Amino acid sequence: MTDTVKYVLDETHIPKRWYNIMADLPSPPPPVLHPGTKQPVGPDDLAPLFPMSLILQEVSTDREIDIPEPVREIYKQWRPSPLYRARRLEKALQTPAKIYYKYEGVSPAGSHKPNTAVAQAFYNKEAGVKKITTETGAGQWGSSLAFAGALFGLEIKVFMVRVSYNQKPYRRALMETYGAKCIASPSNETQSGKAILAQRADHPGSLGIAISEAVEIAATNDDTKYALGSVLNHVLTHQTIVGQEAIEQLAMAGDYPDIIVGCTGGGSNFAGIAFPFIGAQLRGGKKVKVIAIEPTACPSLTRGKYAYDFGDTGHLTPLVKMHTLGSTFTPPGFHAGGLRYHGMAPLVSHCLQLGLIEAKSYNQIECFSAGVQFARAEGIVPAPEANHAVKGAIDEAIRCKTEGKSKTILFNLCGHGHFDMQAYTDYFAGKLTDQSYEESELAMALAGLPSVTA
Amino acid sequence: MTDTVKYVLDETHIPKRWYNIMADLPSPPPPVLHPGTKQPVGPDDLAPLFPMSLILQEVSTDREIDIPEPVREIYKQWRPSPLYRARRLEKALQTPAKIYYKYEGVSPAGSHKPNTAVAQAFYNKEAGVKKITTETGAGQWGSSLAFAGALFGLEIKVFMVRVSYNQKPYRRALMETYGAKCIASPSNETQSGKAILAQRADHPGSLGIAISEAVEIAATNDDTKYALGSVLNHVLTHQTIVGQEAIEQLAMAGDYPDIIVGCTGGGSNFAGIAFPFIGAQLRGGKKVKVIAIEPTACPSLTRGKYAYDFGDTGHLTPLVKMHTLGSTFTPPGFHAGGLRYHGMAPLVSHCLQLGLIEAKSYNQIECFSAGVQFARAEGIVPAPEANHAVKGAIDEAIRCKTEGKSKTILFNLCGHGHFDMQAYTDYFAGKLTDQSYEESELAMALAGLPSVTA
Repeated sequence: MTDTVKYVLDETHIPKRWYNIMADLPSPPPPVLHPGTKQPVGPDDLAPLFPMSLILQEVSTDREIDIPEPVREIYKQWRPSPLYRARRLEKALQTPAKIYYKYEGVSPAGSHKPNTAVAQAFYNKEAGVKKITTETGAGQWGSSLAFAGALFGLEIKVFMVRVSYNQKPYRRALMETYGAKCIASPSNETQSGKAILAQRADHPGSLGIAISEAVEIAATNDDTKYALGSVLNHVLTHQTIVGQEAIEQLAMAGDYPDIIVGCTGGGSNFAGIAFPFIGAQLRGGKKVKVIAIEPTACPSLTRGKYAYDFGDTGHLTPLVKMHTLGSTFTPPGFHAGGLRYHGMAPLVSHCLQLGLIEAKSYNQIECFSAGVQFARAEGIVPAPEANHAVKGAIDEAIRCKTEGKSKTILFNLCGHGHFDMQAYTDYFAGKLTDQSYEESELAMALAGLPSVTA
Repeated sequence: MTDTVKYVLDETHIPKRWYNIMADLPSPPPPVLHPGTKQPVGPDDLAPLFPMSLILQEVSTDREIDIPEPVREIYKQWRPSPLYRARRLEKALQTPAKIYYKYEGVSPAGSHKPNTAVAQAFYNKEAGVKKITTETGAGQWGSSLAFAGALFGLEIKVFMVRVSYNQKPYRRALMETYGAKCIASPSNETQSGKAILAQRADHPGSLGIAISEAVEIAATNDDTKYALGSVLNHVLTHQTIVGQEAIEQLAMAGDYPDIIVGCTGGGSNFAGIAFPFIGAQLRGGKKVKVIAIEPTACPSLTRGKYAYDFGDTGHLTPLVKMHTLGSTFTPPGFHAGGLRYHGMAPLVSHCLQLGLIEAKSYNQIECFSAGVQFARAEGIVPAPEANHAVKGAIDEAIRCKTEGKSKTILFNLCGHGHFDMQAYTDYFAGKLTDQSYEESELAMALAGLPSVTA
């Protein structure tokens, strides 16, 4: 019986360097622009928001960035994360494909997010910062930064999208257990929040609005910086330890993926698993089919426009070129809160433009169905976000069966669903619906994109 | 910086044999009695409820019991579980003590319970059983058996104490995700449930009642057996892999505990960590101070009577000699649902009588306070049950500080609190109370103990 195949590495195999895909891309992504001047931003423009060490990582073209030893020390608590071969799922699907998954739910906060939260907390602490503000959707990122803040003695304030704040009180409780303050957004604590509430007192919030609030507080307080859990280059770079470990673990199995699947909201877990493989390919290694899976209800990569747009609704951030649904687009309230973002990481968008990855969208009900099948075979209950990757991997495995091909599939199980069981309850009760984005609202949001010719 | 100290073993170090403390005890525990005849039960008396392989384990006096290879295969998914040195907690407490904890929350169901659930599901499957009934309090056990049932293709029906069924809908959702059926107890599905509901339609339920319901279904259906998540000898034996691994991991650290702490409800996680060390002591090894921590609101070891009693409220089970609060005692609805049992494992009770362990009780608020301190230092949010062990370990570490002694403390962090965040929410909102058991109700329950002279 070979039910469980787990590839474990000891702590000496935690990567010593993050991988920066900028060094290997055939062309750089378009520059980030100042919203006022429409000229490329320099490090000083970002200094009110981030410590200089992170700004330098954001613009770095070095292939490798050293991971500070205190960060690796903390990584040791849960890293290297396990890589599993999903033998029981393969059997259930009767597929000739080999399915591997990297499991990031082993972190204390339950997802890949602490990989960058710990790094960002470290650099802020090092720079003498006392407080960090941030936003969170489903709460994975907010609770991860709260965890990291507790370890480094930083005060953390999290603006949580109001609909999630109400739907997911237990993520909030987790942040408070770690000692962070969690506020429903839009709030009365900021000008940008007040402006939204003046228009609509019961506004459900969005990641774009929560970002505006967090950025505003950081920009107007000297001892406070801002942290983002996805989208930015340095965040994606921090996540590449996921893919680096997977390469080594697959080598233990004598294997290498033909297909890599990840879910995409802002793009960080997807980049984390995929970029080290794409980099290897760009340096002459094996070509890999890389699939980004997004929700049909918030389809930035598959239905958005590749254009300069703001990262937030209040238009406080710089302009970045990305696949976007428009910064005023409010996605419907489906359960994968971590995927409810109007834009996509510029580096992921650029990879799509370069043909290095493909994108696909799924409805939430089919994703929950895939997640339940996975849980019954493998024992782990995935987060609603991760269910998109599960569904993508299962579909590829079924395609292998149909085509009679034995491919090697790798996907990132980026987090567990322990704090999302209301979503499963609703799924079993038949209460979930497949919400499509509103065509008209989307059209309006896209029409409102800033005019930039750069 | 030596923030994280984790002792990891690879899968070849998963124990090959469970340890049975019966072989090393200076005297055997008193026999289990038939409720009708008051004579010792034989294997055949238990055959309607359990497969014979488990019955033979229940009465075995062999020191070691081979773990079937398919069970070890499944263990590989999360075992050996990590042992951590709590350096950040030690620093926060400014204690000279060394604190180690074994973390069982890494299992798919989030606690130590799958260690026996997988074994029990295996033996039932092997015996041709199709369905298993069980009871659950907080849901840790029910979800673990549901997980094991999904792997072996067994139909699982869980009677969940009604107050927990209502308080903890997400544990229920977890069981359903694994494909199990979960029913609020008392229910109308059994005679014992109906009898209780006839007395009081809104009865909150208790573990004792839920056991009666599950046992009744198994006893009256040929294709159905019953499984218990604690209390019985074979269950405690299955958990000894926890302590066996800890011995090996502490040896990696060049260490051995002076003090072992575990929380006790039915006694299984406590026995799992403690019995291998007690056994070593009984065979001439180092003497260890072993402390069982229980809730003040359900204090079987510290306030109960050591007497023959029923395991269930409906008096369908055999009589076992244990520390008991009386089988009709209904503990108040505090949050550590897994510790709300009127009795204690006979083997644990026997160890207390023999002076091999000591017992101590804590109120729930001080336990949550300890759990929050632990989470902020170590990153892991403990289950409310586990908070009792955390509190016990912290108190011993503080005593070391006061006495200026550097002792080595080991405790079992038997599960995470991801499905118990309502309890943390209530704690932060100041809504928790320290409920003491009712003296009068307890007196009545103890007065109703069966008269047995054996």
